[in-house]
Amino acid sequence: MDFSSKLLERAVNEMSQLPGIGKRTALRLVLHLLRQPMEQTKALSEALQFMRNDVKFCKSCNNISDVELCEICSNPNRNEEIICVVEDIRDVMAIENTSSYKGLYHVLGGKISPMDGIGPHELNIEPLVNKVKEGKVKELIFALSSTMEGDTTNFYIYKQIQDYNVYTSTIARGISVGDELEYADEITLGRSIVNRVPFESSLKL
Amino acid sequence: MDFSSKLLERAVNEMSQLPGIGKRTALRLVLHLLRQPMEQTKALSEALQFMRNDVKFCKSCNNISDVELCEICSNPNRNEEIICVVEDIRDVMAIENTSSYKGLYHVLGGKISPMDGIGPHELNIEPLVNKVKEGKVKELIFALSSTMEGDTTNFYIYKQIQDYNVYTSTIARGISVGDELEYADEITLGRSIVNRVPFESSLKL
Ligand SMILES: [Zn+2]
Ligand SMILES: [Zn+2]
Repeated sequence: MDFSSKLLERAVNEMSQLPGIGKRTALRLVLHLLRQPMEQTKALSEALQFMRNDVKFCKSCNNISDVELCEICSNPNRNEEIICVVEDIRDVMAIENTSSYKGLYHVLGGKISPMDGIGPHELNIEPLVNKVKEGKVKELIFALSSTMEGDTTNFYIYKQIQDYNVYTSTIARGISVGDELEYADEITLGRSIVNRVPFESSLKL
Repeated sequence: MDFSSKLLERAVNEMSQLPGIGKRTALRLVLHLLRQPMEQTKALSEALQFMRNDVKFCKSCNNISDVELCEICSNPNRNEEIICVVEDIRDVMAIENTSSYKGLYHVLGGKISPMDGIGPHELNIEPLVNKVKEGKVKELIFALSSTMEGDTTNFYIYKQIQDYNVYTSTIARGISVGDELEYADEITLGRSIVNRVPFESSLKL
């Protein structure tokens, strides 16, 4: 791409550093900004920089927060004996959105993925193991995505804490509520049959 | 979406103002920035603001430029008697990329689109008509996309300048009707300029 302006070229190049944003999309986005009032670009730029410079990661669970201890960890109504282990903050947001969980979280920051050079030490695993060793945790819920990397990560953590007195569980895998059986993928459908639950328990929902 | 951080929420909200970027995509993009060095966010923010504050529009052709008169308009080797009329700067970039055109451009900044509230006066049409009236232009090449809006815009300009001594042409339609110029392969696009046809002949279609 030949640009008629270095300022435009630089903006497109920086925008196209973002994942999934190619040069053409980046050009479309920055040309849009040029057509909008200056204030919009200023607001976007400042919001990104304030976030990047000032956002904190909760010292207990690693969730993104504006304060040292996030709102979930500092909420006295949450059950701190149950910890749900998730990959990133989007999973916390998704589970919080269901209003069905009242324990705490532990955000790993990714999954073990040797292909991408991500080993256990690149992730926030040790603080989780330490929490278990301190004896305050009664249950760990593994809520990573059920890929090979997710399973590897679950198993790695499980091996670290299996000698301690903690109950481990994983979120139920099954057919989405309201989904037609015939459209479910076969692994999910298979697991939903193997992990079937007493009919009476489904009546309570 | 419930955010655990106001800084994060604000960044996602601003990012999702961009066209085609929903809240989920915006969240994915800003979380990516949080995982990258601070310098990347700084470079992106600064590039956007410098561009928005300092970019100029060429006083002759309305192309984006870092100086008052763009590199194309100020190039003595370009034929200033031929003007190619385009919708936006991406079309200039696409045609320049073919290296098959040595005239100048005129960037309208859009197409006449009553549905979107864009009339002739919202576009950079009058300066083009004035150039023709001054008698320095021998040929106008209409290179707008061949949509209803593009045809309307061509015809509007044509009516303004038809009594003056100027030859009008449209780029040859080796490009499919309805396709955007910027996505055309460069050989087809280059050929469509070399084989441009009298504008009147396109009206018969
Ligand atoms: Zn926390
Ligand atoms: Zn120019």
